[in-house]
Amino acid sequence: MEFDLRIATGVLERTPATLRMLLGGLAPEWTDATEGPETWSPFDIVGHLIHGERTDWIPRAGIILAQGSERTFAPYDRFAQFEESKGRSLADLLDAFARLRAENLATLAGWRITEAQLALTGEHPAFGTVTLRQLLATWVAHDLGHTAQVTRVMAKQYRDAVGPWREYLPILDR
Amino acid sequence: MEFDLRIATGVLERTPATLRMLLGGLAPEWTDATEGPETWSPFDIVGHLIHGERTDWIPRAGIILAQGSERTFAPYDRFAQFEESKGRSLADLLDAFARLRAENLATLAGWRITEAQLALTGEHPAFGTVTLRQLLATWVAHDLGHTAQVTRVMAKQYRDAVGPWREYLPILDR
Repeated sequence: MEFDLRIATGVLERTPATLRMLLGGLAPEWTDATEGPETWSPFDIVGHLIHGERTDWIPRAGIILAQGSERTFAPYDRFAQFEESKGRSLADLLDAFARLRAENLATLAGWRITEAQLALTGEHPAFGTVTLRQLLATWVAHDLGHTAQVTRVMAKQYRDAVGPWREYLPILDR
Repeated sequence: MEFDLRIATGVLERTPATLRMLLGGLAPEWTDATEGPETWSPFDIVGHLIHGERTDWIPRAGIILAQGSERTFAPYDRFAQFEESKGRSLADLLDAFARLRAENLATLAGWRITEAQLALTGEHPAFGTVTLRQLLATWVAHDLGHTAQVTRVMAKQYRDAVGPWREYLPILDR
């Protein structure tokens, strides 16, 4: 699919409520579960999404739109949530994510980004030159990837409990 | 995780609202998208979940609980939705799924299933003997697997649009 800002935003605005419906009030047996050592729980993933709202998508889009002389993004800390989420409840994190996402989408809408601006570029610390269009498409795919991860982590908790049905449930072995 | 009916039900009761938040009112570019020929769109997946509510989980649980002389389940038609969803809107399917799931969870609660009953068995047409506990765990994992599938199908629509970020988004190549 070609990137279209309106169609992309439809996903971005739904993610906080989707995660709230999926995880809000759910037993910690699900929300603190992982896929094993060094893997993330749904709780960790929501913290990671919060960190992205604070430091990644909109700040990077702002760097591209400003077209200043220094357009290299700060590296994204993929582990920030382990400190930042400490002592917080999942309900608190879901609220924070929803609030930050709403603020960021208001910022995005306020920019009234044109087709021409979607082709503007910044410098990714690992990949080099990337466009605003690619950054915004990645924001969407990142949301969807982590929503899929949340449900995969949860499903795997029943890898043994399903007995022979494991053969029909490929998600349990991904 | 050991199967626990209360903890399992927490997921089952959230799936319709999760899918409604994720898909309700979303552009058809997302909801009709697939992963290629012979793969399912989010629209198809919701139809498949409806068919499961009608013919699979609760009817099979009923067969097990009745412990009649014939305990072999009818085979599950994995393609029923292609006929049954024809001409219907996604909004209609999301409503139907929510209504059927609520009815089925009311039936489940009304049975007041005991630990002893969870060990009762039926005959799966392919696997042979399975327990009620395994059937109910599969209902949960099946929900989660298809929710993950919906988000994966959607994410893949941006496989090219994300440019070099594809390397960081393993879901795009699953």
